Amino acid sequence: MKKEDYTTMENYMLSCMEDSAHDKEHIYRVLYNALDIAQTEERVDYDILISACLLHDVGRKEQFENPSVCHAMAGAEKAYVFLKGHGFPEEYAAAVRDCIRSHRFRKSDPPQSIEAKILFDADKIDVSGAIGIARTLVYKGKVAEPLYTLQEDGQVSDGSGDGQPSFFQEYKYKLEGIYAGFYTARGTEMAKQRQQAAATFYENILREVRSSYQNGKKNLQEHVGE
Amino acid sequence: MKKEDYTTMENYMLSCMEDSAHDKEHIYRVLYNALDIAQTEERVDYDILISACLLHDVGRKEQFENPSVCHAMAGAEKAYVFLKGHGFPEEYAAAVRDCIRSHRFRKSDPPQSIEAKILFDADKIDVSGAIGIARTLVYKGKVAEPLYTLQEDGQVSDGSGDGQPSFFQEYKYKLEGIYAGFYTARGTEMAKQRQQAAATFYENILREVRSSYQNGKKNLQEHVGE
Repeated sequence: MKKEDYTTMENYMLSCMEDSAHDKEHIYRVLYNALDIAQTEERVDYDILISACLLHDVGRKEQFENPSVCHAMAGAEKAYVFLKGHGFPEEYAAAVRDCIRSHRFRKSDPPQSIEAKILFDADKIDVSGAIGIARTLVYKGKVAEPLYTLQEDGQVSDGSGDGQPSFFQEYKYKLEGIYAGFYTARGTEMAKQRQQAAATFYENILREVRSSYQNGKKNLQEHVGE
Repeated sequence: MKKEDYTTMENYMLSCMEDSAHDKEHIYRVLYNALDIAQTEERVDYDILISACLLHDVGRKEQFENPSVCHAMAGAEKAYVFLKGHGFPEEYAAAVRDCIRSHRFRKSDPPQSIEAKILFDADKIDVSGAIGIARTLVYKGKVAEPLYTLQEDGQVSDGSGDGQPSFFQEYKYKLEGIYAGFYTARGTEMAKQRQQAAATFYENILREVRSSYQNGKKNLQEHVGE
């Protein structure tokens, strides 16, 4: 890929990320993870892969503003229009669009090309391990959702079966099970290396907060009368 | 303490927290941690301690809206006025005010009473361990600060010596060193039990993101020409 083309796409990506200064580093991590995975795969078109990585989240703002919008679908169309408008060939723009459309997990639309599979895995790796924990917590702060919710008995729920959104709920419903379903061997390997980091953090924070409530509620009852 | 008085203060605390639904759980963790510490200390006035814990962050909103305001100073005055206005004795309101004023670290105004020392330690325990990591990340999301910044060579800074705010910077400047300077033996013990959880998380996330950038920047150069 020509440096000029890379910069054109990078600048467009940055312009779509202006709301949240830190999200752009997610894009670079996904790009770098994808290039790592690509080294272990055959017949990878690096230009399509790099374009797809740079542009994979350009539809995020649309989804944040209207949660019924799928950022993968919206971003795929935005990227396609952008690339066509900047003189890239139809076939190229369509290949990038297909990668972006299928980078978000949906049973009905799995990634087909090797570039799409690599993007899918590279993006999912950034939800694994300690970085996946950190990104989830940052998001909870952004949307003002709690770390955990309390059970009816006033003790801390571990997130299983919770109806209300919280960090613990998202860990149990999404982060804990993210280590299956990768498309590439290298992607699976990278995620597995990080699995223990996420599990350890969840176990530690759950133990810390549960210990506060378990003893604390009892102690409080001794000092607050009826 | 009478249940009625507890509820009066709890409701006032909740009314001061309306901006951020999750912050109230910090108050209960501090209260429960404080009751744990209090069991190992002598001559603790539990009513003053419980009041100080419930009301210790009622000045947070004022500091968030105007960073030059110290939430400990603002909260101490708000709590004093509230308690006096609800018929609590002058001496009681003043003792609670003193606890709240000194719960935030300042060399010039260390906690004096045993209740003030316990509140200080109980609040600091909630900055230690995995819960301290989680609260810091949630805050970074709220104020849109990044996880890390890049050095001049494009690699990830570990946070040491950083001028720009980030999660890594806050870890190195604040969280990493939080385990010294507690006033009670039980507070020190509780924090030490959590120290490894925080250190492990930081080491894991630093390794994960550094590995992406170290190989990724090099790989990218091979596929993007001049």
